[in-house]
Amino acid sequence: MPLVRVHNFTISLDGFGAGEGQTLEAPFGHAGTRLMSWAFGTRTFRQMGLPGDGPGSDGVDDAFARRWNDGIGVEIMGRNKFGPQRGPWTDEEWKGWWGDEPPFHTPVVVLTHHARPPIEMAGGTTFHFLDADPVEALRRARELAGEKDVRIGGGVDTVRQFLAADLIDRLHLVIVPIVLGRGERLWDGLEGIEDRFAIEATPSPQGVTHLSLTRRAR
Amino acid sequence: MPLVRVHNFTISLDGFGAGEGQTLEAPFGHAGTRLMSWAFGTRTFRQMGLPGDGPGSDGVDDAFARRWNDGIGVEIMGRNKFGPQRGPWTDEEWKGWWGDEPPFHTPVVVLTHHARPPIEMAGGTTFHFLDADPVEALRRARELAGEKDVRIGGGVDTVRQFLAADLIDRLHLVIVPIVLGRGERLWDGLEGIEDRFAIEATPSPQGVTHLSLTRRAR
Repeated sequence: MPLVRVHNFTISLDGFGAGEGQTLEAPFGHAGTRLMSWAFGTRTFRQMGLPGDGPGSDGVDDAFARRWNDGIGVEIMGRNKFGPQRGPWTDEEWKGWWGDEPPFHTPVVVLTHHARPPIEMAGGTTFHFLDADPVEALRRARELAGEKDVRIGGGVDTVRQFLAADLIDRLHLVIVPIVLGRGERLWDGLEGIEDRFAIEATPSPQGVTHLSLTRRAR
Repeated sequence: MPLVRVHNFTISLDGFGAGEGQTLEAPFGHAGTRLMSWAFGTRTFRQMGLPGDGPGSDGVDDAFARRWNDGIGVEIMGRNKFGPQRGPWTDEEWKGWWGDEPPFHTPVVVLTHHARPPIEMAGGTTFHFLDADPVEALRRARELAGEKDVRIGGGVDTVRQFLAADLIDRLHLVIVPIVLGRGERLWDGLEGIEDRFAIEATPSPQGVTHLSLTRRAR
């Protein structure tokens, strides 16, 4: 059975995966770039088009970052990751944060209560909009993925829902040593979840810690 | 100036330093022994009298644990670390969790709103009971410590108060990969505290991560 994986999902020391006040200008709210800056300097993220000098770093952070799209056939993302709009779609011109050719190159299932026709982008990415719970969304995503794995792309609420439903096989978390104080918490309602996973911790010279959670045999 | 240090202070992935429902039988509440079990197997903790077979481990966990009493002249602890009683002292026979000869071997300042005469124990530990805010408690503790450092011993609320008052120079935190879900949170009210510290992360083969926070020059 193909796996359900999460990659490069980053939280603060106090467990927030996004700050407060998320907007078009500040997708991570008051967290700004502090959560994801560990990744911006890697070769993987430079190749995705993140700005910066040189080819990017090639150490442990890149080793973890690089695996995000290996063998992935589909991504499931929450609506908040797709864009800053809430409620019914008022701006149908919005096609995500990623420009004309998004870095996914696979189908992407966007969870939303507001139906909308699919959007086909350059480079193989198609956004499908789906009103479904995690189990149904995963069923649909597996159809789109064929034999390949499913990535749960975030945001926080989406990852938490799939963890709560025990649908995740591999979870790569990055803990950044900052205290955000407010925003969206990953761990709410997930007491005792560690029992399901084998966990390995790896530090990086940047001061972040990579946690690899692997689902134990069911 | 002698330093103010915290050692072996352990939190869960979701930032809890103690669980819910702390009692005489369960000093860490529903967390049980899960927070501190990384330490119980070390040579340092075996020498403090923790039960277990053999002399204890001698690796990175012990290297961190061992420093807790080096150059320390006094400990400040909250009343909840001293014992499970709340409110006025009804059981004056209670002399802490640690038996007739506690492992501190220094004066210990116990913060409480309820005054009580000092208790002198075997081996050099004397418990002094003090109703004071962190600044005043530290002033008094420095008098007791002479030229030596001050350790803030916990619990959670005490460490958080001293962090909030910016009185801590060195903070050794241990992050255990469990999700407690409820209890006492360390980070509440400490947004942005990372700006004050240089931070280094070190993993241990047990799966815990040691964070060393060193106060930047003031």
